[in-house]
Amino acid sequence: MVENGDSAVRSVMKDLAPMATGARIIGLTGAPGAGKSTVTSALVREFRARGERTAVLAVDPTSPFSGGALLGDRVRMQDHATDPGVFIRSMGSRGQLGGLAAATPQAVRVLDAAGFGVILIETVGVGQAEVEIASAADTTAVLVVPGMGDAIQAAKAGVLEVADVLVVNKADRPETQRAVRDLRSMVALSSAPWKPPVVTTVATSGEGVAELLRQLDRHWAWLAEAGERDRRRLERARDEVTALAFGAVRARLAVPDELAARVAEGRLGPHEAAEELLASAGF
Amino acid sequence: MVENGDSAVRSVMKDLAPMATGARIIGLTGAPGAGKSTVTSALVREFRARGERTAVLAVDPTSPFSGGALLGDRVRMQDHATDPGVFIRSMGSRGQLGGLAAATPQAVRVLDAAGFGVILIETVGVGQAEVEIASAADTTAVLVVPGMGDAIQAAKAGVLEVADVLVVNKADRPETQRAVRDLRSMVALSSAPWKPPVVTTVATSGEGVAELLRQLDRHWAWLAEAGERDRRRLERARDEVTALAFGAVRARLAVPDELAARVAEGRLGPHEAAEELLASAGF
Repeated sequence: MVENGDSAVRSVMKDLAPMATGARIIGLTGAPGAGKSTVTSALVREFRARGERTAVLAVDPTSPFSGGALLGDRVRMQDHATDPGVFIRSMGSRGQLGGLAAATPQAVRVLDAAGFGVILIETVGVGQAEVEIASAADTTAVLVVPGMGDAIQAAKAGVLEVADVLVVNKADRPETQRAVRDLRSMVALSSAPWKPPVVTTVATSGEGVAELLRQLDRHWAWLAEAGERDRRRLERARDEVTALAFGAVRARLAVPDELAARVAEGRLGPHEAAEELLASAGF
Repeated sequence: MVENGDSAVRSVMKDLAPMATGARIIGLTGAPGAGKSTVTSALVREFRARGERTAVLAVDPTSPFSGGALLGDRVRMQDHATDPGVFIRSMGSRGQLGGLAAATPQAVRVLDAAGFGVILIETVGVGQAEVEIASAADTTAVLVVPGMGDAIQAAKAGVLEVADVLVVNKADRPETQRAVRDLRSMVALSSAPWKPPVVTTVATSGEGVAELLRQLDRHWAWLAEAGERDRRRLERARDEVTALAFGAVRARLAVPDELAARVAEGRLGPHEAAEELLASAGF
């Protein structure tokens, strides 16, 4: 229902709200090929070893499709296929009022209310989307791969702003130490109260995964100490409400042909047209 | 000013509107590595040979940065660096009221008013962004590369909907014929009045570029015959006005702490909160 933007979601969300305030939400993002699914799968194993019921939400902002798991995910996640304490779902962006920014917290609310203590949100880092989705998490891990200049560029361009933990995956490749050094020097420039640690992993073999988990736990503890846990949940609620309000407004802002024609023919400036539209819609 | 979302853009757009209704706008999109810049550069050469003043707007929805050309673009576009009839600019998404969906048509309006007869909008295909940006063009060419399953998947997942011309670039690679066949069979399933032709190019050597231009011209002529040229311009104006109105509304929809807290603590459903917010903002 969340994926389809079903109108009954409204009352379901209202009913689930009081039951859904406990889960720990961890975001994983990175460029295609960074190994997100493999790292996610390795983390699921660790959390299961602790007895935590664990859910994975694979959010693909580039896909309109929802439902089930993508083929690649299925292969990488098959270790967990028969474990009833693990739930894995892929989600696209079609049909959702407010888009993924609204659908993600709704899906999280359902999983939280269903008793999953840990929810991993995996999303491809392709620009604005991962920033929006990272805002849905308590802790966000950003994955990069050694020698992928693009990943570092992406990190510089904004992904770094959302990272609580930086992971250099595929750390058996050459240039790992250089990637670690580059990331550490970027982190050193930050004046934020939390300095993202840089962890190296080879997720396919499990190497470094225990250390990654330790850093995720350290951040989780810090969030509580610093009062950040509540602050992030407040921001999350704010973003969700904004996205829903926004979606409702959009539905009411249809541009009449006559107005569009005046802009298309150069008889009216676009900003003046926007103002006319808002006025006529009663805003 | 457009890139920075300067408030004076409003009056500039109004003044330029009557002067900006003539340019032919061509969109080029495709996955990273499809050779967009090389194909763009080859098309610039063709249009210059016809004496057309030609502008290139490289829109990167994944980058917050604007200004100048990206390094890679600069290298690929250097053939045109000293030609005063060519203008090349990269544009990111930071600071723009209404985001790229508003900034792109504004930049196009400036270039059109400045007398560029052809405006090429090059954008990386990473999901929703290229759909929005394709809607800014009269004709959209979608580039794929042989053997890149991802590109075909992307095409299936929605990019195909926006393609007026399909280009298999790097057609000296194996699997070119298979990619062409796959695309042709997808096109054959469409019941739309315009069937996108499939063109093969090796843009680095110029092979196939004349045929690509011929197909772009054929689509441009078809747009006029079918009455589609005006219809697309109307849709474009509509999208621009919507994005601006939307941006203005967003600025007025700040969620108060108290409201966000009730949602975060599960005391209020998110939809009810959105409704309260809209009501309190007078919507």
